[in-house]
Amino acid sequence: MAHNPARPYLHIDYTNMLAQNIGAEHGITQPEWDGIKPALMQAHSRLKAKRAEGKLPFMDLPYQSDSAAQIRKLADELSGQFDQALVLGIGGSALGPMTLHQALNPAGYNMLDRKSRKYPQIFFNDNVDPDDLHHLLQLIDPKRCLLVVVTKSGSTTETMSSFLILHEIWINALGKDKYTRQVVAVTDPAKGDLRKLAQAEGFRTLDILPGVGGRFSVFTPVGLFPAAMAGIDIAELLAGAAAMDEIFQQDTPEKNPALTCAGLQYLADTAKSLPISVVMPYSSQLRLLTDWFVQLWAESLGKKHDLQGRQVNVGPTPLSAVGTTDQHSQLQLFMEGPCDKLIAFIRIEEFANPMPIKTGFSAYESLSYLSGHTLAELINAEQTATALALANNGRPNYTISLPRLDAFTLGQLLQLLMLQTAVAGELYGINTYDQPGVEEGKQATYALMGRAGHEEKRRQIEQALKQRVRAIV
Amino acid sequence: MAHNPARPYLHIDYTNMLAQNIGAEHGITQPEWDGIKPALMQAHSRLKAKRAEGKLPFMDLPYQSDSAAQIRKLADELSGQFDQALVLGIGGSALGPMTLHQALNPAGYNMLDRKSRKYPQIFFNDNVDPDDLHHLLQLIDPKRCLLVVVTKSGSTTETMSSFLILHEIWINALGKDKYTRQVVAVTDPAKGDLRKLAQAEGFRTLDILPGVGGRFSVFTPVGLFPAAMAGIDIAELLAGAAAMDEIFQQDTPEKNPALTCAGLQYLADTAKSLPISVVMPYSSQLRLLTDWFVQLWAESLGKKHDLQGRQVNVGPTPLSAVGTTDQHSQLQLFMEGPCDKLIAFIRIEEFANPMPIKTGFSAYESLSYLSGHTLAELINAEQTATALALANNGRPNYTISLPRLDAFTLGQLLQLLMLQTAVAGELYGINTYDQPGVEEGKQATYALMGRAGHEEKRRQIEQALKQRVRAIV
Repeated sequence: MAHNPARPYLHIDYTNMLAQNIGAEHGITQPEWDGIKPALMQAHSRLKAKRAEGKLPFMDLPYQSDSAAQIRKLADELSGQFDQALVLGIGGSALGPMTLHQALNPAGYNMLDRKSRKYPQIFFNDNVDPDDLHHLLQLIDPKRCLLVVVTKSGSTTETMSSFLILHEIWINALGKDKYTRQVVAVTDPAKGDLRKLAQAEGFRTLDILPGVGGRFSVFTPVGLFPAAMAGIDIAELLAGAAAMDEIFQQDTPEKNPALTCAGLQYLADTAKSLPISVVMPYSSQLRLLTDWFVQLWAESLGKKHDLQGRQVNVGPTPLSAVGTTDQHSQLQLFMEGPCDKLIAFIRIEEFANPMPIKTGFSAYESLSYLSGHTLAELINAEQTATALALANNGRPNYTISLPRLDAFTLGQLLQLLMLQTAVAGELYGINTYDQPGVEEGKQATYALMGRAGHEEKRRQIEQALKQRVRAIV
Repeated sequence: MAHNPARPYLHIDYTNMLAQNIGAEHGITQPEWDGIKPALMQAHSRLKAKRAEGKLPFMDLPYQSDSAAQIRKLADELSGQFDQALVLGIGGSALGPMTLHQALNPAGYNMLDRKSRKYPQIFFNDNVDPDDLHHLLQLIDPKRCLLVVVTKSGSTTETMSSFLILHEIWINALGKDKYTRQVVAVTDPAKGDLRKLAQAEGFRTLDILPGVGGRFSVFTPVGLFPAAMAGIDIAELLAGAAAMDEIFQQDTPEKNPALTCAGLQYLADTAKSLPISVVMPYSSQLRLLTDWFVQLWAESLGKKHDLQGRQVNVGPTPLSAVGTTDQHSQLQLFMEGPCDKLIAFIRIEEFANPMPIKTGFSAYESLSYLSGHTLAELINAEQTATALALANNGRPNYTISLPRLDAFTLGQLLQLLMLQTAVAGELYGINTYDQPGVEEGKQATYALMGRAGHEEKRRQIEQALKQRVRAIV
């Protein structure tokens, strides 16, 4: 596809995946790659056809510039009125906006004064840990804090439990009439209890496009509204995602990063005995991106049944790591443990602040060689060194390289990972977009919490607990 | 062992590990448990013997109350003088203190005013991301910030690179004479360049006991000094660790949590096709504990060679998750993907702030049943429900239950996990305390950064890079 030469594009280096370079036991041979190519191209055609039928609305999100402009407008209006925003959401309703915020805003953003950050403080609550919520409330003044509640179904237990607690606190602080102007509900345009509640109370609302699941929702208001409230250039994010989507139109797998990565990942899991898929950015600002990817990959591909209803129990296990930090933690296992991991590095070629290391200390042999270098050089030298050391030990890895970290390149990266997941789902032959395995735990929670209609389930649980052989130490 | 009935003790429920309850495919049968018991008891005797010979000094750390009192005294003196402390360290030099701080201090501690937190703000820098360090410096005033530099070897590349940069900033802010009183070096008592530098410059120093590796160092000054600076009761931490050590003296595996857990984990990996070991606390305050455990487990057990020098490439893969959050992320894979995971839950029976959920909303069926409950009830009901749903699907799990989360119970938990690791290392027959696999990457980094003596390595790398078949998209 036509790159705009004035803009930075990511690329993938998979040299350390090739059997010619790392050996055939875990490296991919030419016949193996040639073998997977037809399946990749079929997957690509099927996705194009489904998209044309309107069945993959997440793929069109990068082009929703009108909606982004409205979000920008609302966020600018509200960020002028409030000093704080508290986002309630869990899973896909939190990981997307948290990833954007960490990647594109400085660490310690909330500790900067308003003049430096320009936009409100942003807090996220993505669990029902009662102490954690108690601590969070010590930092928040309901009178100047916008409450953003995000649940697609409108009834997510964790999000709505926290909301019920906060709702009362906001009413007590502001009064029943005024508080409603300080709540934004991000939910399905028509269905669910949060939508009804929003209509009854008069909250502002933003719609999540039906058909876009939580883990693919980063470019809906779920991700974009909190990002816009934190001053992130959401138009640039979408431009980056659109740039990746344009490249994705390319039919040749070797010219299409999402097809290439999906093919490498699928071969690694199914043909090369590498069921664990590590994502390891050399960037502290991309820590949460690994959690976002873990949800995307685990929940999309970890499935009991294939599309024909056969029991398959498939799905690679995604694993987070961060360089250089995890060189002092997980790397020993990656290097010497069972060869069961594919490692996808992410690196940033040019950091905004290279941080030169002081010249001097010539008396100390372990320090003197660092003089005159920068931290930016060091972190990237360590990435190169680690990738090479793994390859020298026959351990496959590839590197996603971002020219720099900004909204445009991050948009590309997120879109790449979502497209890669869609392609991989086609290769595994499963439903990429459901999550039936979490239903049983939800029903059991309802039963334990006494939700009407779950009395029989509760009796079953109590009986099961009684009948078990107990083992305690 | 004799419990003090006035104190809270953790316990382990491994009901959901037994073949009688979850089936024999992945559940542990009585013959399997009977089969591992002799090895567990031998491992226990060997560890006792090694400890008696002084070869396992980490096991004696809980009894170093004199050293803890000195640390407390220094921390109280310095926390009176400074408003901020910045801890530089990586791997074991950061994960221990970060874990303690997150578990025992409120989220947003640094945003509280000094009166509420009583102790200085605490910042950690555990990477060489240049932008991250740049952002951190926006939050710090060198004139009122204590610099704590932690490296056992005294020459860890990442820690010392950051230190060289900060050292200059501190000198510029304070002058060459005064700055030295604002640096605490935590390092080997005699060896290494940081020790020499500290002597030359006149830094305060705290000693890391030789023979205690980074991942076992949480109860040395590495963990205890930053914890004490953040107001944590380090005497209680050690008392909890000592309580677990006393229980560890028990020879019967079923009465000794560390032996039980090591046995379960080892059987899971080696006999039940469960090579992935998940740790999943239902507590936001124990998020970093999972990272600490990942280092401990991965770096201790992931080894190429056994003690006889045979190539074995062993080691389970530890994986972090947090409940309830990861029910909306990884749980789908845990439930329906390949059955290759053992899940160790951690739960807190009693939270400090239960957080009652507002009564009302009877018009909304998805909300009304929550009324009258607390978030504490909900988070624990979800843990019970998830453990049971996994068990019902034949997926093994056990639960470590803390009566509450405080310094005494956290001390027990950390000591349990370290002792379990030591026992598991004996079962695998490997050296639990080294990390030879990271050396190659270090040497390659030195070569790429131009360290003297690494010229030949650099030539080799350049040649290797040239000879490879390149693959880029």
